[in-house]
Amino acid sequence: MSDQLIIFDTTLRDGEQSPGASMTRDEKLRIARQLERLKVDVIEAGFAAASNGDFESIQGIARAIKDSTVCSLSRANDRDIARAAEALKDANRARIHTFIATSPLHMEKKLRMTPEQVLEQAKQAVRFGRNLIEDIEFSAEDGYRSEPDFLARVIEAVIKEGATTINVPDTVGYAIPELYGEFIRNLRERVPNSDKAVWSVHCHNDLGMAVANSLAGVKIGGARQIECTINGLGERAGNCSLEEVVMAIKTRKDYFGLDVNIDTQHIVAASRMVSQTTGFVVQPNKAVVGANAFAHASGIHQDGVLKARDTYEIMRAEDVGWSANKIVLGKLSGRNAFKQRLQELGVELDSEAAINQAFTRFKELADRKSEIFDEDILALVNVEGAQHHENQFQFISLAQQSETGERPQATVVFSNEGREIKASSEGNGPVDASFKAIESEVRSGAEMVLYSVNAISGSTESQGEVTVRLQRSGRVVNGVGADPDIVVASAKAYLSALNKLHSNMEIVAAQG
Amino acid sequence: MSDQLIIFDTTLRDGEQSPGASMTRDEKLRIARQLERLKVDVIEAGFAAASNGDFESIQGIARAIKDSTVCSLSRANDRDIARAAEALKDANRARIHTFIATSPLHMEKKLRMTPEQVLEQAKQAVRFGRNLIEDIEFSAEDGYRSEPDFLARVIEAVIKEGATTINVPDTVGYAIPELYGEFIRNLRERVPNSDKAVWSVHCHNDLGMAVANSLAGVKIGGARQIECTINGLGERAGNCSLEEVVMAIKTRKDYFGLDVNIDTQHIVAASRMVSQTTGFVVQPNKAVVGANAFAHASGIHQDGVLKARDTYEIMRAEDVGWSANKIVLGKLSGRNAFKQRLQELGVELDSEAAINQAFTRFKELADRKSEIFDEDILALVNVEGAQHHENQFQFISLAQQSETGERPQATVVFSNEGREIKASSEGNGPVDASFKAIESEVRSGAEMVLYSVNAISGSTESQGEVTVRLQRSGRVVNGVGADPDIVVASAKAYLSALNKLHSNMEIVAAQG
Repeated sequence: MSDQLIIFDTTLRDGEQSPGASMTRDEKLRIARQLERLKVDVIEAGFAAASNGDFESIQGIARAIKDSTVCSLSRANDRDIARAAEALKDANRARIHTFIATSPLHMEKKLRMTPEQVLEQAKQAVRFGRNLIEDIEFSAEDGYRSEPDFLARVIEAVIKEGATTINVPDTVGYAIPELYGEFIRNLRERVPNSDKAVWSVHCHNDLGMAVANSLAGVKIGGARQIECTINGLGERAGNCSLEEVVMAIKTRKDYFGLDVNIDTQHIVAASRMVSQTTGFVVQPNKAVVGANAFAHASGIHQDGVLKARDTYEIMRAEDVGWSANKIVLGKLSGRNAFKQRLQELGVELDSEAAINQAFTRFKELADRKSEIFDEDILALVNVEGAQHHENQFQFISLAQQSETGERPQATVVFSNEGREIKASSEGNGPVDASFKAIESEVRSGAEMVLYSVNAISGSTESQGEVTVRLQRSGRVVNGVGADPDIVVASAKAYLSALNKLHSNMEIVAAQG
Repeated sequence: MSDQLIIFDTTLRDGEQSPGASMTRDEKLRIARQLERLKVDVIEAGFAAASNGDFESIQGIARAIKDSTVCSLSRANDRDIARAAEALKDANRARIHTFIATSPLHMEKKLRMTPEQVLEQAKQAVRFGRNLIEDIEFSAEDGYRSEPDFLARVIEAVIKEGATTINVPDTVGYAIPELYGEFIRNLRERVPNSDKAVWSVHCHNDLGMAVANSLAGVKIGGARQIECTINGLGERAGNCSLEEVVMAIKTRKDYFGLDVNIDTQHIVAASRMVSQTTGFVVQPNKAVVGANAFAHASGIHQDGVLKARDTYEIMRAEDVGWSANKIVLGKLSGRNAFKQRLQELGVELDSEAAINQAFTRFKELADRKSEIFDEDILALVNVEGAQHHENQFQFISLAQQSETGERPQATVVFSNEGREIKASSEGNGPVDASFKAIESEVRSGAEMVLYSVNAISGSTESQGEVTVRLQRSGRVVNGVGADPDIVVASAKAYLSALNKLHSNMEIVAAQG
């Protein structure tokens, strides 16, 4: 067994499957670049056969990413696999990840296939894939609830067909560390050609044990790949969180004795990027990337920390990219200082034109706000990125007022394909009135499913960053807007969500 | 070994130690009542010797709670223990929880004591406590990093002195499940009188494994008490989360074979109450209580769930108190319907007068908003509770406006000890202008450290709930405000925070 642990990130595939977390092609590309900066070994970029939008996202990422392997999910059929191979054609290193369910419940109720049919389809899929690409991962969906004899037969067969990685997921988050570890170990002992493939774990967090289960799969079971996501994003309670599992491997190297390639200093920037893009907040008491993860409140602890750092800290905040110095730029900062800070924050804009646009916005903001914090810059660039491509609706201006005892009112001026529109409405509050004003003209028919304001640390002179989640005909999109005026930020977020709703992207749907 | 697992909740003690999570006496009492409704076995209500405010909170909880044991933390000295016993005097069932660090690092760097001195002090503390109260828990702080021989000597000695529960915490969140489980098992085997006490685990989540570690301490180690908090609240990355560990024990009863008393249907209400009180958001992908914990997005999963629920769900949302039907009340709802809904939501107001006040606010809200959701009621009652006692500042009215190209303006009318004040200011946005208006008169000198808006699911016709966290001279307070107009909600939250800052409560500081 090698002592190198492969980190397989599926933020862009399994993470994106969280209700409301869908991302545009540009957003995915930006996150993929951050994952490459993190030195993730494998980036699962999507599910090529799910939609044209997903296909194009994978294709774009395959062309842009040089260091990490780029992977597409596919069901165990020729059409899906061919589509995945096509999307990955230009990748420096490509992997196809094909899956089929092997648990009695999933085979009977979902696939409506016999075990023998599943076995045949698995073999056929891997054989077909192997003719197109060398690097083939096979996943036995709901593997942990599968019958071990049958699962071992399937795994032996697909390794014979050329699968190079074998993944045994805990699809429903039902496992307990020691049981999951033993399950993987027993399987590996039982499969005669088990040493011909890398074994992989993929755990969900429904009982809060995804990280511990993954690590038990590695330590007890002998797996050498962990599938995980930034912030533990993913369906339901999410997946194993990359930052936690990586820091556990590093902090407890005495026990695990494994190396990972991850450059942990980019972890906090990656966490913020994923949170801002999806509108999924990170709770303050989240390990490693939560705002409080390295803070100490109680008198006793503060005293202890002053006397010896190790008394209460097992990791260093700097090692995961928390930086104490947050005031960075102001009105007099030049383009170079701005560009350099972007680099330090791990933000890479596509072109000089994009940097210029962002810098113009930065100057506008600096006129209104004396101190520009990292959060402000990230908000600015994030919104910049989100609004980068062809937008039907553009915010122009807003006027609103509210007074106790009267109905709040708002007038929003925005453009629809270049045509200027002025719309007014009343509402329960100024934000509600702004949204109603926009809807009085656009009539999108969309339902709002979430309105959230990212927590602002520091004074309300900071930019407010608002996420608006709209739903129409089963499609869910997030719009993001930032402005020191929270009502303006809200209107921008609403228009940004409408732009996404009106664009031609389809919904992505895949396996968990 | 009994097959009953004791659930020891420390939301009000270790949870409150999160920077910014401090709570008022009334807030603590409300949460304690919800914990009793959950059928928590032991409620750690605070650290009596830390401050007069904490003493009074414990005293109030000890008087109000009948079914759960009420516990106070205390350092291992006579003064702390006497103070704890005094606060618990009126409790139906009382426990003193005394602790001292036993790891070489903590003894040397923090306590500056020799192991023999620590051993003597531990014995003395338990002996002293046992003369006051029957139920004595002893914690070996940083137990997991302690030298096993020494730790076993300490534990044997304190059991001889009459300690009835022995807690071996992983204070810094460094443990791995199988190692922690073995550590507890070895200790129990090594301590000759180990069967004279209940063994307890207390795990922190710095590497994301607090739940798995706690369960390993129980299953492998033989512990029969788990210390945990609602939402995993607690210093740094927080503690073992009650909802996750309880649902793991219940969902995997096949493996653990243990009973817990928890009435899981009150879990979601408890989670919301703690989140609203502290201003600590729960991320959507949080297990059990996150907004997405039971949601399914992808096409394949939806199909699977329709075909057989078990394919992707291992728990039922109803079992933890998620209720699908959220529209409950409107303008025509009467006081009885309102009162009944409060009960269903697990909210118990102190008096008929408090219910009347809340109902008046409810009617005011219903005049402005056609559908009143559970969130609205909880926000209403939460604010009601927060504003219940003597308030220096009261919100009266607000007028604000903003328009692109001009400086936003706000005028806030509020009372200061009954005297009406009208204050106006400009700001970067209407929220900022409102805060500056209030500060122009109050001049609190406080620094804002957090401004957050709780995510609103559904339309912006809902009430916005705002948390404002202020800091002054090392003291941190949270103010909460709710209103359909987010600017008004913000001003109310700011005044609520000022009220807390001006009240005479002291800061609470304790061990983790």
